[in-house]
Amino acid sequence: RFTRQPRLPHCADMYRLQSLACGQMRFITAEAKASAGRLEGKLREKTLTLDTLNPQVKAVEYAVRGPIVIKAGEIERYLEEGGTKPFSEVIKANIGDAHAMGQQPITFLRQVVALCTFPELMDSPSFPEDAKWRARRILQGCGGHSLGSYSASPGVECIRKDIAAYIEQRDEGVPSDWENIYLTTGASDGIMTILRLLVSGKDSSRTGVMIPIPQYPLYSAAISEMDAVQVNYYLDEDNCWALDINELYRAYQAAKLHCQPRVICIINPGNPTGQVQSKKCIEEVLHFAYEENLFVMSDEVYQDNVYTPDCQFHSFKKVLYEMGPEYFNSVELASFHSTSKGYTGECGFRGGYMEVINMDPEVKAQMVKLLSVRLCPPLAGQAAMDVIVNPPQPDEHSYKQFRQEKSSVLGALADKAKLTEQILNAVPGIKCNPVQGAMYAFPRIFIPPKAVEEAKASMQPDMFYCLRLLEETGICVVPGSGFGQKDGTYHFRMTILPSIEKLKVLLGKVRDFHIRFLKEYSALE
Amino acid sequence: RFTRQPRLPHCADMYRLQSLACGQMRFITAEAKASAGRLEGKLREKTLTLDTLNPQVKAVEYAVRGPIVIKAGEIERYLEEGGTKPFSEVIKANIGDAHAMGQQPITFLRQVVALCTFPELMDSPSFPEDAKWRARRILQGCGGHSLGSYSASPGVECIRKDIAAYIEQRDEGVPSDWENIYLTTGASDGIMTILRLLVSGKDSSRTGVMIPIPQYPLYSAAISEMDAVQVNYYLDEDNCWALDINELYRAYQAAKLHCQPRVICIINPGNPTGQVQSKKCIEEVLHFAYEENLFVMSDEVYQDNVYTPDCQFHSFKKVLYEMGPEYFNSVELASFHSTSKGYTGECGFRGGYMEVINMDPEVKAQMVKLLSVRLCPPLAGQAAMDVIVNPPQPDEHSYKQFRQEKSSVLGALADKAKLTEQILNAVPGIKCNPVQGAMYAFPRIFIPPKAVEEAKASMQPDMFYCLRLLEETGICVVPGSGFGQKDGTYHFRMTILPSIEKLKVLLGKVRDFHIRFLKEYSALE
Repeated sequence: RFTRQPRLPHCADMYRLQSLACGQMRFITAEAKASAGRLEGKLREKTLTLDTLNPQVKAVEYAVRGPIVIKAGEIERYLEEGGTKPFSEVIKANIGDAHAMGQQPITFLRQVVALCTFPELMDSPSFPEDAKWRARRILQGCGGHSLGSYSASPGVECIRKDIAAYIEQRDEGVPSDWENIYLTTGASDGIMTILRLLVSGKDSSRTGVMIPIPQYPLYSAAISEMDAVQVNYYLDEDNCWALDINELYRAYQAAKLHCQPRVICIINPGNPTGQVQSKKCIEEVLHFAYEENLFVMSDEVYQDNVYTPDCQFHSFKKVLYEMGPEYFNSVELASFHSTSKGYTGECGFRGGYMEVINMDPEVKAQMVKLLSVRLCPPLAGQAAMDVIVNPPQPDEHSYKQFRQEKSSVLGALADKAKLTEQILNAVPGIKCNPVQGAMYAFPRIFIPPKAVEEAKASMQPDMFYCLRLLEETGICVVPGSGFGQKDGTYHFRMTILPSIEKLKVLLGKVRDFHIRFLKEYSALE
Repeated sequence: RFTRQPRLPHCADMYRLQSLACGQMRFITAEAKASAGRLEGKLREKTLTLDTLNPQVKAVEYAVRGPIVIKAGEIERYLEEGGTKPFSEVIKANIGDAHAMGQQPITFLRQVVALCTFPELMDSPSFPEDAKWRARRILQGCGGHSLGSYSASPGVECIRKDIAAYIEQRDEGVPSDWENIYLTTGASDGIMTILRLLVSGKDSSRTGVMIPIPQYPLYSAAISEMDAVQVNYYLDEDNCWALDINELYRAYQAAKLHCQPRVICIINPGNPTGQVQSKKCIEEVLHFAYEENLFVMSDEVYQDNVYTPDCQFHSFKKVLYEMGPEYFNSVELASFHSTSKGYTGECGFRGGYMEVINMDPEVKAQMVKLLSVRLCPPLAGQAAMDVIVNPPQPDEHSYKQFRQEKSSVLGALADKAKLTEQILNAVPGIKCNPVQGAMYAFPRIFIPPKAVEEAKASMQPDMFYCLRLLEETGICVVPGSGFGQKDGTYHFRMTILPSIEKLKVLLGKVRDFHIRFLKEYSALE
């Protein structure tokens, strides 16, 4: 028969009396301490202060929501409370948040997610059948046919299969295995996950992560948080922000002297730089990674955002395939996509996926274990991702509207990309490369030496410039220093997301401000 | 006039020729390497292997989705493919995934989220006004009035305000400041964030994190991933898994010899243990934290899951308040809630929040910066959280149905909690504490010495037990070793989520299996 084991003797019996006492005398103790504190004129110190905070957290910087954006929020509140400024509204061109700038959602995507959320709508005649069957299919893949259940940590199986099918179609038949697909909480989450595998906490300061400069600051932030070594390779501004293979070799050789570069990150189309990489350039990068045994992370969240007719998106995976089996079967590659950009702009759903090829099966198992601790990505975001990879087909009811909505979003973005480049380049002291893709212009701005001098005491010159721009015009853009730039050059990043009318106003204000600014610091006669 | 600065000379010019060459000869090179590789009989080594993987990732364990659950999935597939077993279906009692076990969503919550997702439904007469005005209010708080925009990193402002109002009401007037509220991607995300601040990467091995044993393995996993020191305090199984203050002192004193304990984590109601902490016990813990200058993390995601009439949920914040200003104004406390548990069980929405009080303002700014790198929690999850803290009121149309759905879920859980305890305690060699709250039973099981011996060669005895249970009955539960337990004791965690009928079948099978198991290892005459 079951006999209960004796209760382990308390090693803490000696504390029993004392603590019983302190239990009863709690408030007395507290007051005693309090008065003591008051006498000594000090309060109980905090456990967590700037001194005891994890220094890696302190080191993190994220300009896209940094000081200038906080300042913009303060000005907005000030205006709401009836305060007066030389402008009536703050225009936030700091972040790729399409819907916040008035972009309308794709009807079909929202119909499918709404049907998944509230299946009673399946009976509603106002929802099209093609949306209903997609929603039914997604719910079939969910535990209890509910969006409220956890999915498997890599995501809902049928959605992973839809993504693999989409990739095969996008890459003209290059095979994609659905078991290499992992749904993520936005692309950022996937990027963090892969870096977490590569960057060892123990000797993390020895792990080099190659990133482009300028870069999207998620990368530098993750590197700081994980205490890895940031290895910068500079994009060539004089050549439309192209990636120059020689610069890659230079950066790699220089880094090897003080760390072990293990991974190269590429953003294509570029954020903040907007360039679209040529196939030849991608081949060179992949060959370099092959030779130097680097893990490749290709951030391809802007793959649907290509605007100039002479440019085309080439996925790293497809190019790797075309380089032959010796490459395709060996280079470890993770590519990332998202619901937040493209023509849907569904940032709030936090949807995304990554495709990981050639990963060691044991490492894969470890990654799935790591993912399982966070349980799963949000199901609504997974559903949104499914619609993006499985949109209405020409023979389906919703095709016409979907196609019209999609092309109007992408058409407007293409127009705004062109407009932004043209207006900025007409301003003395501003030079803007063509916005071939993505959602941003990253113009180079001339800041007169006097202004540089005045700024340097307290902040980066381009921060000084952007703060002045914000204060005088209400336009919120992000200083180039938040993304990285060659020493002695200055830029800012602005999105091309405002409506065409608002964008014209914005660019006009930038022009006038810039000319005033140059005059003030007498760089113009 | 603006003069473009000269292009920086390439430090890599020496590589130019070589790399141009390698550019042209890429495929030749590749084939050469390939044939060379074949000759030497080796392939290009992988960048990321089990040896080069971040060792902290390797150290992570998460039993709730661990080996036994993977095995269960294999058996499920085997059955689907027509394979035969002594059972027809796998019953997954391993994870608190209510909807997957057939629990129906709360209609009102889904109506509000669907309205936010597809605002055209505002015109639909089939949606009640009280749901519509909540949806409108949430969308008012979203950029561009769209669920597709990013929110501020701490969450949508009006939702943060609703949460603060809910907490004040729950805690009978104890003040709550909405600026102390942070929406999260499920509670796990918030717990990770706070630990990230406390655990320094540099001297992380010196930071002690006190956690209950048994614990929910998110905590041990996070501690492994961050390379902190896990400081175990044992809950008292013989006293309904109560937290014994003496044990806290013992654990703390013992830990101080080799690390600096900086934070104490409490799970109330308990997971996996199901106990509900008494007010006196909470006071003792808070006094201890006050005295020893510890940061307090109270995991209160099961605050709505209390079943036994003699138990009541007391929030750590309310108790801290009642201990007087000396405590309430000094102890740093973060408490966590979620959409995943309670009566909604909306796991897939990944919604949650944390309230953080007495945090150093500079640290708070650092935390917001860290949150901003991940941009924001999913908006649908934030909306779901809003409904939970702002449910239909007695004078509203949806109140009756909401109340009925809520009480039927909680009533059924209370019945199943009782039933589980009763049936398990009737089995020789199984002892189950009352399931006062949460969603799990954590019975202690007697494993005969012979079985322990047989198991120990290859695995933990309770893993051996649970694998046998799975293989013979199709029931998937998690071994106690995945949560931690006193040496020499064995347990498993099962959820009480299956329908009452299914739960009876499950418990009957467990009973029969256990008796067979004891017989087989001749512990019963």
